[in-house]
Amino acid sequence: MEGQEANRGANYNSVPEVVITRLPQYIRVLYSLLESGVDVVSSAQLGEQLQVTPAQIRKDLSYLGRFGKQGRGYNIRYLIAELKQVLGLNKKWNACLVGVGRLGRAILSYPGFAPEGFEIVAAFDSDPAIVGQTIASLKVQPIEDLDKAIAKHKINIAIIAVPGKVAQDTIKRLTDCGLKSILNYAPVYAQVPKDVKVRNVDPVLALQSMTYYLVNRS
Amino acid sequence: MEGQEANRGANYNSVPEVVITRLPQYIRVLYSLLESGVDVVSSAQLGEQLQVTPAQIRKDLSYLGRFGKQGRGYNIRYLIAELKQVLGLNKKWNACLVGVGRLGRAILSYPGFAPEGFEIVAAFDSDPAIVGQTIASLKVQPIEDLDKAIAKHKINIAIIAVPGKVAQDTIKRLTDCGLKSILNYAPVYAQVPKDVKVRNVDPVLALQSMTYYLVNRS
Repeated sequence: MEGQEANRGANYNSVPEVVITRLPQYIRVLYSLLESGVDVVSSAQLGEQLQVTPAQIRKDLSYLGRFGKQGRGYNIRYLIAELKQVLGLNKKWNACLVGVGRLGRAILSYPGFAPEGFEIVAAFDSDPAIVGQTIASLKVQPIEDLDKAIAKHKINIAIIAVPGKVAQDTIKRLTDCGLKSILNYAPVYAQVPKDVKVRNVDPVLALQSMTYYLVNRS
Repeated sequence: MEGQEANRGANYNSVPEVVITRLPQYIRVLYSLLESGVDVVSSAQLGEQLQVTPAQIRKDLSYLGRFGKQGRGYNIRYLIAELKQVLGLNKKWNACLVGVGRLGRAILSYPGFAPEGFEIVAAFDSDPAIVGQTIASLKVQPIEDLDKAIAKHKINIAIIAVPGKVAQDTIKRLTDCGLKSILNYAPVYAQVPKDVKVRNVDPVLALQSMTYYLVNRS
């Protein structure tokens, strides 16, 4: 089954990254439509919800194969299932957290990951005063145990919450261990090998990309 | 001076949004180069740091006018100053926080906003048990006072940390008050008028856009 899914997934290799980053939003909007009692949605309705053109919706979904029939709209349940399949969201993923300071503790306690299939199964810190503490049911391990723990717990994703000045070294350590997916809360631009994906969770970067529109209104 | 800046900014009206969202990363990388003692950087070096092609760097910066001379590289201090000017980061911005639960409190205590010129000057909640409390030197106000406070404090940006089920109503209330920039921590896809910008700070969306690459490796 897993092999089958992997084969299936291989067909989707060429979806542009900008489309991939939009698809989780599609799923979110589709779930909210489903909750409001809608079963079938047109690209026009979906475009309205996502505030993009219907043509954009059709183009994005065309990368994934044929959904729905001309003029009939998309079956929402089916579309959600397909999107989750494409994005690899129909399985559970194990993550580790590196950096168990104030921010790291908040991340360990965040209730939003597990229901979406992301479980933080190990936590690491370099501070001997923090190592050995139990936080959110996890015993904090020394950073030296990273390599072993990644293999043992089948960890695919690292969440970085270390201070900025040690972030790049930490990221290098993680990619040296073979990790390919990094969720980065540290305020640095991560330098990683080409086959590693990084997503930054950074409210300051987000704010800095909105003020342009405040100063450039006509 | 402010008028002059506004006029100047008006020249940049046509920079594509995808470029605008990259520019804060440029500033971050340029500052880190400056800290490491570098004064001038080529598009090749900058591309290497940002992990994009030199051609992409030159194209992005071409929207902003002429920087540097062929073969001479960019003066980093000058480039930072220009980028900050374009993005409207050479002034202070006032923000309000709506939703002072656990997440909202963490946001109010976050030390990263003020040094970057973003100050949270007012906080709102709808829960009478929270209204009136003082958190991070701010007295939480009733949500009914939003309109008055936005005008009084010259607030341009709203930060949303309310529960998902009331998020859309809250966002509508804010845009009805004329706010055009929303930093959304709630797990919803915000429906806003065309002239309003929304940025989502959402670790789950970020994770969901990386697992694709884990299941589709060749």
